[in-house]
Amino acid sequence: MITVAESQQRIVRMQALFKEKGLDGGLFIFPIDVFYFSGTRQNSTLWIPAQGEPLLLVRKSLVRARAESVIADIRPFPSSKEFPGLFDEKIAKIGFTFDVAPVQQLSYYSKMLPGREFVDMSSLNREVRSVKSPFELEHLRLSGSTLCSVFAQVPDFLAAGMRELDLSAEFEYRLRKAGNEGYVRMRAFNQELFMGLAVSSSGSSYGFFDGAVTGQGLSIASPHGASTRTVKENEPIFLDYTGVFNGYITDMTRIFVIGTLDPELQRAFDASLDIQAFLQSALKPGAICEELFQKALAMAEEAGLGHCFMGMPGEQARFVGHGVGLELDEFPVLAQGFKVPLQEGQTIAIEPKFVIPGKGAIGIENTFAVTISGGEKITDMPDNITFI
Amino acid sequence: MITVAESQQRIVRMQALFKEKGLDGGLFIFPIDVFYFSGTRQNSTLWIPAQGEPLLLVRKSLVRARAESVIADIRPFPSSKEFPGLFDEKIAKIGFTFDVAPVQQLSYYSKMLPGREFVDMSSLNREVRSVKSPFELEHLRLSGSTLCSVFAQVPDFLAAGMRELDLSAEFEYRLRKAGNEGYVRMRAFNQELFMGLAVSSSGSSYGFFDGAVTGQGLSIASPHGASTRTVKENEPIFLDYTGVFNGYITDMTRIFVIGTLDPELQRAFDASLDIQAFLQSALKPGAICEELFQKALAMAEEAGLGHCFMGMPGEQARFVGHGVGLELDEFPVLAQGFKVPLQEGQTIAIEPKFVIPGKGAIGIENTFAVTISGGEKITDMPDNITFI
Repeated sequence: MITVAESQQRIVRMQALFKEKGLDGGLFIFPIDVFYFSGTRQNSTLWIPAQGEPLLLVRKSLVRARAESVIADIRPFPSSKEFPGLFDEKIAKIGFTFDVAPVQQLSYYSKMLPGREFVDMSSLNREVRSVKSPFELEHLRLSGSTLCSVFAQVPDFLAAGMRELDLSAEFEYRLRKAGNEGYVRMRAFNQELFMGLAVSSSGSSYGFFDGAVTGQGLSIASPHGASTRTVKENEPIFLDYTGVFNGYITDMTRIFVIGTLDPELQRAFDASLDIQAFLQSALKPGAICEELFQKALAMAEEAGLGHCFMGMPGEQARFVGHGVGLELDEFPVLAQGFKVPLQEGQTIAIEPKFVIPGKGAIGIENTFAVTISGGEKITDMPDNITFI
Repeated sequence: MITVAESQQRIVRMQALFKEKGLDGGLFIFPIDVFYFSGTRQNSTLWIPAQGEPLLLVRKSLVRARAESVIADIRPFPSSKEFPGLFDEKIAKIGFTFDVAPVQQLSYYSKMLPGREFVDMSSLNREVRSVKSPFELEHLRLSGSTLCSVFAQVPDFLAAGMRELDLSAEFEYRLRKAGNEGYVRMRAFNQELFMGLAVSSSGSSYGFFDGAVTGQGLSIASPHGASTRTVKENEPIFLDYTGVFNGYITDMTRIFVIGTLDPELQRAFDASLDIQAFLQSALKPGAICEELFQKALAMAEEAGLGHCFMGMPGEQARFVGHGVGLELDEFPVLAQGFKVPLQEGQTIAIEPKFVIPGKGAIGIENTFAVTISGGEKITDMPDNITFI
């Protein structure tokens, strides 16, 4: 549970942005946004005025919202007639998360508050969320160490001849027993994920997912993650999994090989470690996100691997790192166009990866926190390939 | 993979509704909607004109979309400049799924197509999807029988003293090994789910989830499903799980007891079977959804259990059945306000349940198909409580 002080400092940061942008407040309807500020993920709507006290309006469960949230003013969700009365006449400009709020929701709230202008506060919200408090960093460290403890068990159950699906099931079983909450929240429209990936073979890399590797999946309807293909000797077995604990997500990838590895894949893996080492040293406040991506791409090109950096040639992802926290895809993104500086306390999954057609997917991924002395490794276990 | 004929009959039904409602076509951007009509869930946008051939515009993966989809005209997603040229000048009124499309998406598309009116086609889309073809019913039967095969294994691993989480992990492990795809799609805003529930104790029933039982969950951030509470003797152990196979979802609940059951809970269970028996016999084309709910509620009241029907007193869900298919929450809903008649081929999870404070949650759930002779049980295994 968050403390009153923790909730208040988050709200104060949001209010400062409202004032800066001329908004009279923000109406938060997306569950994880409500959770971040209020401490409860019950079905509810949170009004944060630019000045003054927030108001939490609960549909279900009011019992749990009252037990969980630190917001002082919690009420049952009012009728459409009562709703407008909660908003002062001076409130003219209301922030709304246009990135995730369905059109029907905007229509519903704007009809109840006629004459008010609803404006997009998506990037303000994501900006506040991107910088983690010490409380959040503790949760992320716990998430990372628990995820690592499951990765450490892979040699106990990985064997040639098992299906990617069996490998996934063994991994997910242990992750779940360790307290993993399972549902992985993503903010981007049209992205979805079930816990992670256990894949081998480069052919598995095509796909809708906005990352280097999608996996074949079990059907055309669920084309992500493990397939029923069997895992073989002498190929890279690529495990990319999330940990979700107390809502906080960490993300990491490790490579396992039963037997020996093709030298070209080993060279690509070494290049991914070089890129990660550079990025870790550069994860300091003030570093420009776009420049980190450009440097990573340049390093991949220098290694002769630019054509297969971050994905199958022709389907390459255009980033090398993404914020993580309560969602898998938070700000900032280490990508072209992100000309913003890093801030202390941001947490970023760094994932230099290569997909070599006909040979396989390989690389590394760890979650780091931005500190004044460079990236603090949150998923703290050795990066080496595990040979079995 | 769907056939060309299967895709075409779906599109023709959608086009008939477009014509009836005066729309010139619909722009589908939500992944499972695109999948339903085109056969691929890759990241893409599908244009279905009221007359003429559909067009699939693919962001990623074009390779997979071309391999998977039966749409004849598949192209890479065009630039913003090229996009308007794809739409005839006569196209004035464009359907869009306002129920799930974020405001930013509507803004993006309406800017590219200025002068066109975008209208909400959410209910038309859901109406088409609610009636399953023979091909879909076969997939649903397969989903149901595989889910049943895992429920049948529960006595092998259920034991007093294990945590709800351990019970979940054992169930989910077997479900996954059986080929379950894991990610459970839900359409309703703010609902989310990880595979299902394994809960005991009535205190677990409060929660945000729009159902009779939410479960305590593992944290305030993920307040759904199993907790770390241990399962005890002589209490109802409530397992409510989904199966997801080839994208098709079935939903069922069974009760397990280690020892003996409180007579009040047994009476409530018997009432749930009576309600289910009535509803199964009534699942025929033409029956009015709302009336089925009202009759179920009346039966619960006659049994003296109206106050705890479909949830904790004060937090009762207002339905007794919901459509299932590619999403867990499809049309129709057996609820107040749904004055529409059932149609042959609709598939509905019927779930009369009771939550008795201090004693526990109990009831039954099965997925049925609407047929001219009443509900065909898709999750075909005995309904009885399993005593261990």
